[in-house]
Amino acid sequence: MGPRDRANHGYKAGRDIAVVLAEVPAIADHGGQIRAATAAFGQPAEGWLDLSTGINPLAYPVPELAPELWTRLPDSELFRAARQAALAYYGAPADAGIVEAPGSQALIQALPRLVPRGRVAVVAFTYAEHERCWRAAGHRVLETNGLDETAGATVVVIANPNNPDGRLHAPLQLGALADRLAADGGLLVVDEAFADVTPGHSLASQAGHPGLVILRSFGKFFGLAGLRLGYALGAPSLTAALEAHLGPWRVSGPALAIGRQAMEDRAWIAAMRETLAGAAGRLDRLLSESGLTIIGGTALYRLAESAQAETLHAALARQGILLRRFARRPRWLRFGLPPDEAAWQRLERGLRDAMRS
Amino acid sequence: MGPRDRANHGYKAGRDIAVVLAEVPAIADHGGQIRAATAAFGQPAEGWLDLSTGINPLAYPVPELAPELWTRLPDSELFRAARQAALAYYGAPADAGIVEAPGSQALIQALPRLVPRGRVAVVAFTYAEHERCWRAAGHRVLETNGLDETAGATVVVIANPNNPDGRLHAPLQLGALADRLAADGGLLVVDEAFADVTPGHSLASQAGHPGLVILRSFGKFFGLAGLRLGYALGAPSLTAALEAHLGPWRVSGPALAIGRQAMEDRAWIAAMRETLAGAAGRLDRLLSESGLTIIGGTALYRLAESAQAETLHAALARQGILLRRFARRPRWLRFGLPPDEAAWQRLERGLRDAMRS
Repeated sequence: MGPRDRANHGYKAGRDIAVVLAEVPAIADHGGQIRAATAAFGQPAEGWLDLSTGINPLAYPVPELAPELWTRLPDSELFRAARQAALAYYGAPADAGIVEAPGSQALIQALPRLVPRGRVAVVAFTYAEHERCWRAAGHRVLETNGLDETAGATVVVIANPNNPDGRLHAPLQLGALADRLAADGGLLVVDEAFADVTPGHSLASQAGHPGLVILRSFGKFFGLAGLRLGYALGAPSLTAALEAHLGPWRVSGPALAIGRQAMEDRAWIAAMRETLAGAAGRLDRLLSESGLTIIGGTALYRLAESAQAETLHAALARQGILLRRFARRPRWLRFGLPPDEAAWQRLERGLRDAMRS
Repeated sequence: MGPRDRANHGYKAGRDIAVVLAEVPAIADHGGQIRAATAAFGQPAEGWLDLSTGINPLAYPVPELAPELWTRLPDSELFRAARQAALAYYGAPADAGIVEAPGSQALIQALPRLVPRGRVAVVAFTYAEHERCWRAAGHRVLETNGLDETAGATVVVIANPNNPDGRLHAPLQLGALADRLAADGGLLVVDEAFADVTPGHSLASQAGHPGLVILRSFGKFFGLAGLRLGYALGAPSLTAALEAHLGPWRVSGPALAIGRQAMEDRAWIAAMRETLAGAAGRLDRLLSESGLTIIGGTALYRLAESAQAETLHAALARQGILLRRFARRPRWLRFGLPPDEAAWQRLERGLRDAMRS
């Protein structure tokens, strides 16, 4: 009896449910993390500067919303217009299958339930939810270090660019892998949650091919993670199955309207890509000058390595600056982008003081 | 191979997916319905007066939203505060299990996947999604006309009050049924989507008992269906299984904040119950004076019967007034509440003209 069966039948048996829940790792939670950091390091006088996420701190400005977006069930025209904007923004063929969800997390949860149980290779080290959700749906999951270790898998999951190290795979290489998997009835899942800043590496132009599904997150690049909007692009039969699984009215009216407007705002998108690239460069210089080694990242976060990662994390936390650590990679520190000049200055001071101590 | 298996494995086989999708009935869609009505009856000069839904047209005013609600992932504190407000508003014990979803529809979709396959009795005639979703998850579903026909079922699904006829069941009777089902490992599902206007009949005070799960919709009474917020109340093991199934960050930050504020606004709630009761009385008088027989409903919609239902529906549609019909109940017409005095006058004129012709 696999974990999936336990999850399905577990509500009657407290013990089984406990097993399932115990498999769920702690998920990044702003409030919870801030509380934990406050308990460990004290309440900073200036408040916390949270650099622990990869969410763009320069959010797309939320427009005035028509009252009907709140009052009415989101209707098919709202879905259609938002999908059209998404296909165009992502550079996907107009006839590719597409389905929206309240965040790409909902797609990561649902997808493994719609795929025949098999051997799933997750290219690690990456976002932990992939492994957890494929396992929870009863698949055998193996972590691999790269694409060359995925032979024998029926499903391959890869984040492109990868989180947290920013590793990029060439679309041609991934397309060839998707074709190879499709020939045996398999599937390549490409998590493009951070691909908005590396559009040249997106596989979206191949969306619709059998054996390929692409997951996109609206909230990260557009800085609106609270809105809950994500898309899957893929073969129409697969996106239709996801749609049937998630059901009607699966995302809110405001999410559809804001998502559409933001994805059609080419000037904002182009300017933001420039801004984020500049900010990432500034962050690299600052971290390098502070003696850290940049080992990867995207324009939305930078990954640094240091033998003193734990000490540095604590020293910055005592100054109210929160970074992201990874239990399985103790020498790594992920830095999100400071939201404004005051935050940049604060990080600069924080790093200087931490290095001195 | 049941429908569930087809849904799970169908993405590779176009034919099987087609079978699943063919089982999905057309779902009420404002845009689609308005387009169909326009095609059939022409574009009304004054625009459509849509009385085809049961959503309160006097919506809770959407407050100013803190920017963090849009920009940050909704965190555990936001979820906790909204749940606390919901438990208090629904009158559920503070230790009952509770889980939120992007609309009660998402709970209707998910619940059948977490319950061992069995015999499900849906007390009909009711919201069609219950039957569809239990069937889609591989259960054997039988429609019954009342609670006395549910013997032998492992799961009983009942809407209280019922949509569209407003039938009410006594909480004591339903509680006894839940106990009986629980004794055999079964489950009573009470859809309380419209119970905000009949709080005395809610089973929420019994939430937490094994064998009982209650589904609540935020959008209908509060008039904010586009927000996507619903709750399940039940045994903690069942709501935990639903939560694991739906995954983290399953509803938006704005939905949690607005939901909390609205459910804590006791003055608005009390005044709105009065207002809606008054409006329902006015609608009954108007419909009765127009020769219609009121056969049920709630304060959010009224159900009328007429041998001329089809003719009346068409006559009102030609005047731009859209009612809800039911394919399986051709003599029934469901009337939503007019949003303002102009709409009341328009409905009055429309009924007078329709009766004359």
